[in-house]
Amino acid sequence: MHYHCPMKVHGKARTSIWANGADHRVFIIDQTLLPFAVEEHEIVTLEQAAEAIRSMRVRGAPLIGVTAAYGIALAVHEDASDARLSRACEALQATRPTAVNLAWAIARMRSILLPLPPAKRAAAAWTEAGRIAQEDVATNRAIGEHGLRLIRDLHGRRQRPINILTHCNAGWIATVDWGTALAPIYMAHDAGIPLHVWVDETRPRNQGLLTAWELREHGVPHTYIVDNAGGHFMQQGKVDLVLVGADRVSRAGDVANKIGTYLKALAAHDNGIPFYAAVPASTVDLQWRGGDEAIDIEERSGSEIRQLRGLSAHEGLTRDFQLLDDNSAVANPGFDVTPARLVSDIITEHGIAAPAQLAALLRQKGNRP
Amino acid sequence: MHYHCPMKVHGKARTSIWANGADHRVFIIDQTLLPFAVEEHEIVTLEQAAEAIRSMRVRGAPLIGVTAAYGIALAVHEDASDARLSRACEALQATRPTAVNLAWAIARMRSILLPLPPAKRAAAAWTEAGRIAQEDVATNRAIGEHGLRLIRDLHGRRQRPINILTHCNAGWIATVDWGTALAPIYMAHDAGIPLHVWVDETRPRNQGLLTAWELREHGVPHTYIVDNAGGHFMQQGKVDLVLVGADRVSRAGDVANKIGTYLKALAAHDNGIPFYAAVPASTVDLQWRGGDEAIDIEERSGSEIRQLRGLSAHEGLTRDFQLLDDNSAVANPGFDVTPARLVSDIITEHGIAAPAQLAALLRQKGNRP
Repeated sequence: MHYHCPMKVHGKARTSIWANGADHRVFIIDQTLLPFAVEEHEIVTLEQAAEAIRSMRVRGAPLIGVTAAYGIALAVHEDASDARLSRACEALQATRPTAVNLAWAIARMRSILLPLPPAKRAAAAWTEAGRIAQEDVATNRAIGEHGLRLIRDLHGRRQRPINILTHCNAGWIATVDWGTALAPIYMAHDAGIPLHVWVDETRPRNQGLLTAWELREHGVPHTYIVDNAGGHFMQQGKVDLVLVGADRVSRAGDVANKIGTYLKALAAHDNGIPFYAAVPASTVDLQWRGGDEAIDIEERSGSEIRQLRGLSAHEGLTRDFQLLDDNSAVANPGFDVTPARLVSDIITEHGIAAPAQLAALLRQKGNRP
Repeated sequence: MHYHCPMKVHGKARTSIWANGADHRVFIIDQTLLPFAVEEHEIVTLEQAAEAIRSMRVRGAPLIGVTAAYGIALAVHEDASDARLSRACEALQATRPTAVNLAWAIARMRSILLPLPPAKRAAAAWTEAGRIAQEDVATNRAIGEHGLRLIRDLHGRRQRPINILTHCNAGWIATVDWGTALAPIYMAHDAGIPLHVWVDETRPRNQGLLTAWELREHGVPHTYIVDNAGGHFMQQGKVDLVLVGADRVSRAGDVANKIGTYLKALAAHDNGIPFYAAVPASTVDLQWRGGDEAIDIEERSGSEIRQLRGLSAHEGLTRDFQLLDDNSAVANPGFDVTPARLVSDIITEHGIAAPAQLAALLRQKGNRP
């Protein structure tokens, strides 16, 4: 992949996923070890791709889509039959039910590969997966440029550092590069607009640690807070806008995102603070009406709540530790749905739209039905 | 202390604090070790009492008040002069600025002791501290009985198990016995009303672990969830009421409670779910107008966010773990204020009142100005 990599770790340009087409190997940064260790993880089979998605070695709706595309390429490289292609698509689809980019990337790969003779599928699959990855970078750059306008305008009006609250991680590590919600923040920071980010911890998996790690590596001022604290800071006038990614957006602008997003949207609404979701158009599910129409919300393992990963203070090693034993039940929904009425605007690569105008914007741009 | 102790640990009746008047020793269960270990901690000086409050070996507004009362008794036992009494009151007041019961208990001890000749103060202080502790048990029993009516009524209407969400720990371990928010739950459970409790984890200090531990010891069905999840369960119709304690309540019914309470109150309001705070009348600060009038919100150490205590999975020992290093800033407000408009009723030992009727109820009962 030969696109520009703006994001850096210890000053070295990195992307969250990269591929070696010559010998059919895919590499990721293992996000289950971040921020305690930055380790590469190699994927050479479909099963390894599915495991990486399921276990959240890769995470973030856009990156999941790209990883699934490479997973199909790896499967088809082994066996290019229709049956194998179908099984690969099904196996990947089962890994994370809520993120619509996964379904989108799988459907795109299938529609490209199925009409081809099996002998041509392996090369085409590899090319198409690389194209999805490259497009993701361009998409996120465009999201960043649109979102930058919002931050610039607000700074122009307030003439002081802009405080942005974000939930979960929608940064470059959740995409191939740039990120969705963090792309406007990186661009605003690079443009010299003073800003500060409130980073929600995002229990149970503490993806706020990833966001803090990204922001620190890029030099963006930030403060890590527990998920309980954001509403209080909004009441205190210390938040100018809320900016999150999403895993699925309805055609009416309802936002399915990491569990807890709804609570921050309620608090933003209660305090007159704008709430934005930044997503690639592929995250908008035009089949989902929103409102009363429910979607499948992934229930994740209770072990994510009972156990945590951290640095053992006396050993200096990354360790798992137990918070809660098996004598209490746990429930662990991965996502919630923020109703469109609480969403100010959706930022996409095609521009910014209020929920009611979202479907029209995407239709006008001609890339969606 | 010779009152009935309904709460049990491993079947043995326990209170959160107990005193040996003969040799001036006070004992607590060290809550910083719960639920990983149930250990007694001895307090024999004012300084140890202050340290226990500051470090949250004891916590919960009512229990803090009782501990402060014993702290004054221990100080006066050493030196019964006016100067020593004043210094003791000041030292204790500085430990936790938000909880009004602390100020209330200190003021009560001072007003009893100051008119007495120094030679009589030690015995009177010990007696008065014991009285505050005994009254706390009676107060919480009355809160439980009033709150029980709400749960019984709801069960009568719905004819199915009642789902109650609680935040932080307002159980017997946060008081001397029974608890505030948990007292109605214990009584409803004991009365055979089927119920289930959603236990908020309550980062950063995870007091939900204490609530889960209490409920488990008492046999109350419960599910431990991260703070992000409660709003989603409310949207899904899985929460019938929210019931929390409080550290200070304004005369207009604004509720200062553990950080994150406001977010749950917003979600309850958005979903038409009643939100109750259960508090002793001593928690109502009639000097606090509420609304725009701000109160001092305790900012606690960032180490509470950066580090967590858990069981080391490979050692089986209670250990501290580091989540976040010092390269990212943290902010750690201990409380937030839920506006009275989001509060359905306040449950006190004198009865249940809507926020607008709270001050009148307390005046009518004649125990407050």
